[in-house]
Amino acid sequence: MPVDPNAPIEITGYRRVPPFAEGRIKDLRVRWALEEIDRPYRERLIGGIFEDKPEAYLADQPFGQVPVYKENGVTLFESGAILLHIGEQDERLLPSDPAQRGQAISWMIAALNSVEPMLQILVILNVTGAGQDWREAATDAARPFAEKRLAQLAHALGDREWLGAGFTVGDLVMIDVLRAVPAPMLAPHPNLAAYVERGTKRPAFERALTAQLASYANHAPQDA
Amino acid sequence: MPVDPNAPIEITGYRRVPPFAEGRIKDLRVRWALEEIDRPYRERLIGGIFEDKPEAYLADQPFGQVPVYKENGVTLFESGAILLHIGEQDERLLPSDPAQRGQAISWMIAALNSVEPMLQILVILNVTGAGQDWREAATDAARPFAEKRLAQLAHALGDREWLGAGFTVGDLVMIDVLRAVPAPMLAPHPNLAAYVERGTKRPAFERALTAQLASYANHAPQDA
Repeated sequence: MPVDPNAPIEITGYRRVPPFAEGRIKDLRVRWALEEIDRPYRERLIGGIFEDKPEAYLADQPFGQVPVYKENGVTLFESGAILLHIGEQDERLLPSDPAQRGQAISWMIAALNSVEPMLQILVILNVTGAGQDWREAATDAARPFAEKRLAQLAHALGDREWLGAGFTVGDLVMIDVLRAVPAPMLAPHPNLAAYVERGTKRPAFERALTAQLASYANHAPQDA
Repeated sequence: MPVDPNAPIEITGYRRVPPFAEGRIKDLRVRWALEEIDRPYRERLIGGIFEDKPEAYLADQPFGQVPVYKENGVTLFESGAILLHIGEQDERLLPSDPAQRGQAISWMIAALNSVEPMLQILVILNVTGAGQDWREAATDAARPFAEKRLAQLAHALGDREWLGAGFTVGDLVMIDVLRAVPAPMLAPHPNLAAYVERGTKRPAFERALTAQLASYANHAPQDA
């Protein structure tokens, strides 16, 4: 079981998040990667997602987000940077073959910079537009950008199991990004839906999700 | 002069883009990095930004974007992945000290996943909302997300010259992201405005921008 209070690796997570955000916070990606290679880590839980963070935390994470990763004097922020660091230590997450490694990193960055942002627009419009008369029109205008990325991704994946020769950090991030896509938007691409299912049925994913949800349950308001 | 038809490194760019996009396409980031370390590259120009790309190109770049980077059998896409690959070959872009390296990569990913997406929303709403009555309200709702990121970044940068101990790929990407911020939005943060100016006055940036603009001028419609 990778969660171990004595582990040399420390990652941060929130102590509590709203129900809709449970299982969606990005420390999950790092927990998943560490579970894949059976590396123990200890948790450091910080305040709630919407609370102001103390200056000491902002020194490690300028945007007040989670996760921060610490190990042997190295401090990293941004899940993508952390996954790269972890991947470089284990072929099961990032192949050492230069061509395969390059593809895996390309896919990870694509998930972070070409796919996730187009989906995030829809989330932001949905939240900020609640009860507003402009929400539907603005969302209708932005949705094609996300749909185009999903169609391009589905085309690239085809009938392969993973984006590269085997599972990598590229798949890990892409699958976590796709988990947040509403089912109707994924429905035109059964291969993407199957890809997400394949990823989230990996035992390492299931253990990571269980660990993240347990950290919230352990700090539920009634226990505070 | 890094543009050299016989160079072993090949990067792709568009043959033509609309005037508003000149100097904004992401092959600029890769040209800039290669100029910083004086590594020659050859250009392969593909069709226009909005044209459908041939299947052979999609095999290299699943989203039909530029740049694609090729060298010695390694094919990379996504500017972030390419910059990491280039940075790993030269301390002037990515320090080998583990702590400094981790910070540089964290900042690069932050630029790609925490800052750029919040600005991109505003661009998409501005473009798709042209002439629409919802544009102003939707933009007003999304703008605080971008403003918050800029304020956090300004706080983190403080009065330092670069985000880490020296210029890295993290600065390179962050500065290119910030170049696209409208002046009034950057105005509350004079240190960010000065940071952008410092970055874009680097001779390597200027040479990269000149090379990118020259590639469009060489393929202007009257010459086609």
